[in-house]
Amino acid sequence: MRSIAELRKEIAAYRRRSPEGQAVGFVPTMGYLHEGHASLLRRSSAENGLTVLSVFVNPLQFGPNEDLDKYPRDEARDLAVASASGADIVFMPEVREMYPERMLTAVSVSGVTERLCGASRPGHFDGVATVVTKLLNIVQPDRAYFGQKDAQQVAVIERMVKDLNIPVDVIACPTQREKDGLALSSRNFYLNADERRQALILSRSLAQVPLLIREGACAERLIHWLSSEIAAQPLADIDYIDVFSYPDLQPLAADEPLRSTSAPVLVALAVRFGKTRLIDNMLLNPAEVH
Amino acid sequence: MRSIAELRKEIAAYRRRSPEGQAVGFVPTMGYLHEGHASLLRRSSAENGLTVLSVFVNPLQFGPNEDLDKYPRDEARDLAVASASGADIVFMPEVREMYPERMLTAVSVSGVTERLCGASRPGHFDGVATVVTKLLNIVQPDRAYFGQKDAQQVAVIERMVKDLNIPVDVIACPTQREKDGLALSSRNFYLNADERRQALILSRSLAQVPLLIREGACAERLIHWLSSEIAAQPLADIDYIDVFSYPDLQPLAADEPLRSTSAPVLVALAVRFGKTRLIDNMLLNPAEVH
Repeated sequence: MRSIAELRKEIAAYRRRSPEGQAVGFVPTMGYLHEGHASLLRRSSAENGLTVLSVFVNPLQFGPNEDLDKYPRDEARDLAVASASGADIVFMPEVREMYPERMLTAVSVSGVTERLCGASRPGHFDGVATVVTKLLNIVQPDRAYFGQKDAQQVAVIERMVKDLNIPVDVIACPTQREKDGLALSSRNFYLNADERRQALILSRSLAQVPLLIREGACAERLIHWLSSEIAAQPLADIDYIDVFSYPDLQPLAADEPLRSTSAPVLVALAVRFGKTRLIDNMLLNPAEVH
Repeated sequence: MRSIAELRKEIAAYRRRSPEGQAVGFVPTMGYLHEGHASLLRRSSAENGLTVLSVFVNPLQFGPNEDLDKYPRDEARDLAVASASGADIVFMPEVREMYPERMLTAVSVSGVTERLCGASRPGHFDGVATVVTKLLNIVQPDRAYFGQKDAQQVAVIERMVKDLNIPVDVIACPTQREKDGLALSSRNFYLNADERRQALILSRSLAQVPLLIREGACAERLIHWLSSEIAAQPLADIDYIDVFSYPDLQPLAADEPLRSTSAPVLVALAVRFGKTRLIDNMLLNPAEVH
């Protein structure tokens, strides 16, 4: 489905005919669907009477030197994955349907966007917040599903939804991984064999984080250890490795053992392998690390 | 009603029990209701099955040196006007209900906010856009009513609603005036007798605008004429007098007859009388000025 008006009509028709309490679930994506997206669709389909998938590569959230033009696209495959995973409606708007004229309105979230990907990709989260607001206004779902792999994106959207009283439940779902641990991402498609092999260091080193925290590591030591593990891979070019409280993304005391922190802790990293920038993270409650 | 949760429950109950096609109308205000607000409520009540009025003096849209603290308030009178004018639900939240924690999210509209009140009151329209987004998300009305007296506010909200795909019809209603022409405003309450008498020059000079346009006045001449009329009142302190296309609020050729302009034209002004800043405007289609 390409048109906003048509999509709204379908959803309104569903709402009219569906029995009380049958909710609408929404999975916004940029397409090139993988098992991570499929897991969001299956969860939405299990929890709602109608599941809407959107596939839209949003120009607003790409910087001028980023990979907008070569972001992978495959509509036929996306439709197959969508239907196999429980999507009832697939919304695939053209850019001119979403942005028929120059956008004068922007939604921006401060604080949680200043670090991590917000620092590396200026304007990125304004683009995300704006398009997600538009999509939520178009679909008006009861629940919207996002992958925890984009942990900062989840924090931004949760905060925006709360601040603007958007009537939706934001549901963050666990990161899906290949058998060897690589976090699923549409960008994995760009990796050559050597890059892909070396990229395994991301999930492998993150997997050691609970052990290090149990042993008394502070934020500084954790970052140092991760950096040296990852930098040992010759093709790895570190963008950031950082540790913050979650979901407010504030710095933690650099030299205090993380196991004494009460709030959830996000260990997040972005690393380039060749031209491909990958992100991964671990979200954990230090009090529960035994 | 003070609580967002309670308000949402009431509106949801109405939507469930109301027959198909019974819409919800919404009139957002800062209270101290006058006949202008009452006219919005009557119109909403005539066009919708349920009319929600909000009364909220929004701190976000006041600058540090503006009149937030002394903005006039009278809840008892507001409730009386509301019920006499057809409001079914009155939402009067405390500041901490609308802003329970520091706002990290902002909605901003560029372009249409750079001139007129946007230039005199930096940040004002970001505060308006943000609170109106919140209120629309809370009430989820089918129609929202605004007074054309705040012409730039209407232009900002119309643009925001379009850009963000907010599912609401924005309805701009004519400015209501005292018998002697003074545009109704809660701020008129501040005027002393001399200021009030001299403030009549605003509506009186604006009333001459169609005549001047018919006679071939260009934007520059119109502004010059209005300035000298208004400045002749000793208590008048002009903030701005300007002429723009509407609703995009772009400058018009200063020296071309306005009657040859195809788009609607907004003649808008802001003038202080003592400490009170008043605004007024005339929106007209030059092609229809005969």
